[in-house]
Amino acid sequence: MTTAFDWESVQKTSLLRDSLPGELAPYTLSSGEGQRHHLGDWHVTTMARHTDTGGEFSLYRIAAPGGSGSPHLSVPGHSFVHVVEGEVTLTFGGRPHRLIGGDSASIPAGVAFSLAGRATNNSLFFYSTEEWLHRLVSEVGESTGSHIFPRNPTSAVSELLRSELVDGYGVTIHDGGESMGGGIDADRLGNHLPDGEVPFVNAAGHGDRFETFEQMNAYPVRARNTGGRFFAMDTRGAKAPYIPLHFHKEHSENFLCLGGRVRLHANGEEVVLTPGDFLHAPAGTIHSFSLAANNTHMLGLLTPPVFEPFFEYMNDPTEEYVHVEGGEPHFPAEGFAKAQAELDLVVVGPPPQS
Amino acid sequence: MTTAFDWESVQKTSLLRDSLPGELAPYTLSSGEGQRHHLGDWHVTTMARHTDTGGEFSLYRIAAPGGSGSPHLSVPGHSFVHVVEGEVTLTFGGRPHRLIGGDSASIPAGVAFSLAGRATNNSLFFYSTEEWLHRLVSEVGESTGSHIFPRNPTSAVSELLRSELVDGYGVTIHDGGESMGGGIDADRLGNHLPDGEVPFVNAAGHGDRFETFEQMNAYPVRARNTGGRFFAMDTRGAKAPYIPLHFHKEHSENFLCLGGRVRLHANGEEVVLTPGDFLHAPAGTIHSFSLAANNTHMLGLLTPPVFEPFFEYMNDPTEEYVHVEGGEPHFPAEGFAKAQAELDLVVVGPPPQS
Repeated sequence: MTTAFDWESVQKTSLLRDSLPGELAPYTLSSGEGQRHHLGDWHVTTMARHTDTGGEFSLYRIAAPGGSGSPHLSVPGHSFVHVVEGEVTLTFGGRPHRLIGGDSASIPAGVAFSLAGRATNNSLFFYSTEEWLHRLVSEVGESTGSHIFPRNPTSAVSELLRSELVDGYGVTIHDGGESMGGGIDADRLGNHLPDGEVPFVNAAGHGDRFETFEQMNAYPVRARNTGGRFFAMDTRGAKAPYIPLHFHKEHSENFLCLGGRVRLHANGEEVVLTPGDFLHAPAGTIHSFSLAANNTHMLGLLTPPVFEPFFEYMNDPTEEYVHVEGGEPHFPAEGFAKAQAELDLVVVGPPPQS
Repeated sequence: MTTAFDWESVQKTSLLRDSLPGELAPYTLSSGEGQRHHLGDWHVTTMARHTDTGGEFSLYRIAAPGGSGSPHLSVPGHSFVHVVEGEVTLTFGGRPHRLIGGDSASIPAGVAFSLAGRATNNSLFFYSTEEWLHRLVSEVGESTGSHIFPRNPTSAVSELLRSELVDGYGVTIHDGGESMGGGIDADRLGNHLPDGEVPFVNAAGHGDRFETFEQMNAYPVRARNTGGRFFAMDTRGAKAPYIPLHFHKEHSENFLCLGGRVRLHANGEEVVLTPGDFLHAPAGTIHSFSLAANNTHMLGLLTPPVFEPFFEYMNDPTEEYVHVEGGEPHFPAEGFAKAQAELDLVVVGPPPQS
């Protein structure tokens, strides 16, 4: 459940590094850091829990060996999957989908699905509005210092999740339905994300697309798909300077670096994210970011989704799939003024000096 | 052609950053840096030329949009392909192969092949013992400051390479044979790289595998596959400290970071490589490296391949596919002594302090 953010307290909280705060606070995790568990032959890193996010979401890195898959299951809350490495088969509605790095999927509460790894090393980010998976790995999984799945697991995740242990997490196991590999390519949705709360997959680079100077901003999932709980923004672009320091009162902003480097300021401290690194900026955090390497790629997860119009104010809709480098730099001042007037945006200073 | 390395001069040369030296010297390139050209609808970044490597090799990052492919062609020298992002269809011998991130391929001189991009963003590293591609992009391509393929190319790479312009680079265009997408999965070669100089593809994590404490070292291509010109080493592992400072007199060592972070020392300077970054350490360079992030992944390209036995001396053969974290640290002192006695290895100091 979402409660109002105590943004004034957050603003006075120092950035925490490489551990979960256990309270609503800005924090950053280097790739692989978080609470780690073996769950059968899977490796699950809890990167955010409800207690860290004011009840907004939980976040995980799941790593799975080839040939390892979950049973078909339905779970509480809305789930969003972004594949990082390898090939993952995601099955729902009787169809296996083949997802590779950059492909994503949106799965509403109660929709039965299964996930299986196909390459030697498969990893994905799993975002949930609930935290059934954190409770499951904490109670059924095995706590580990390792950052990789076990070589000799005591059981497969498929067996583990089918056992009676999954009772009590709101998870329902469905007989059959799962596929252990292959499937159709991720759908290339172009600019046509579904209208409602239905399950879908979206190929890397697709989704509702908007562009600005040297930058492509695509929504791989929008508020209309998540029952108004969150949206995601997939940004690819050339090197770009810091934007003005600002904060939000009503929503938290979460950054996952997928490629290149993202420089971030959070409550006066600077962090450089490289692929796999994460930063949680809850409401109140005074922050800014810059794209600090060629072809930087980052995923933003914003919850609740009150800020979704910002990217439409600041960008132009486009049918293109990649950004362009070069041309005259321009700042969409009119869109920015509109965002300041209408949206959850408080500008507090010029772009920080890196 | 390979000439003896003037390793004593190299040892006195400072590390160059983000530009090609134009002579045999240690240098590093951040992801995307190098000499950039549009080649039809492809984007080619020359990361090393013969003049930078003592004639040993040239290296490129090729980025291609979906639906863009080369004609079927045979080229001078041995080629090695490592896919970074998206999905690439590599066709040879009448069979299209589907390569995703981490998959690689070895293509001997004269074997006809074609490459096509299938996802929205596709990129790969292309290593060649010759430099036909550098000459081709310099003369036929369009120099650009951009780090991404053009949105409105003047021609497709397929048309450009079919035109008369390719005469004179030792490239032969073969009618038909290419495939624009799909294909069979990359072969999972296990520990069974082919014996000879034949074309093959190797799925991520496969190849001839050896392991040591918290580290998996796999050869995706060996000297026996490249006519004795070079070999590659795919390393995945947990965080690991610097190894002793050392240099080589007879071979150059090249580092591509594929995941996590690699810290390197080169002639007294420290560099941190993140994914896509490159460092060339020609013979003479006093260097060391450490794996500086969880699940770091790097590709080494060593030429000529006199150092290939080192990884067998320092590791144990394994049928496993992933490293294990934990256990007692151990240094293979016996193997290291053997390497110092028999191989091209001069240790000059303890591990550097980072």
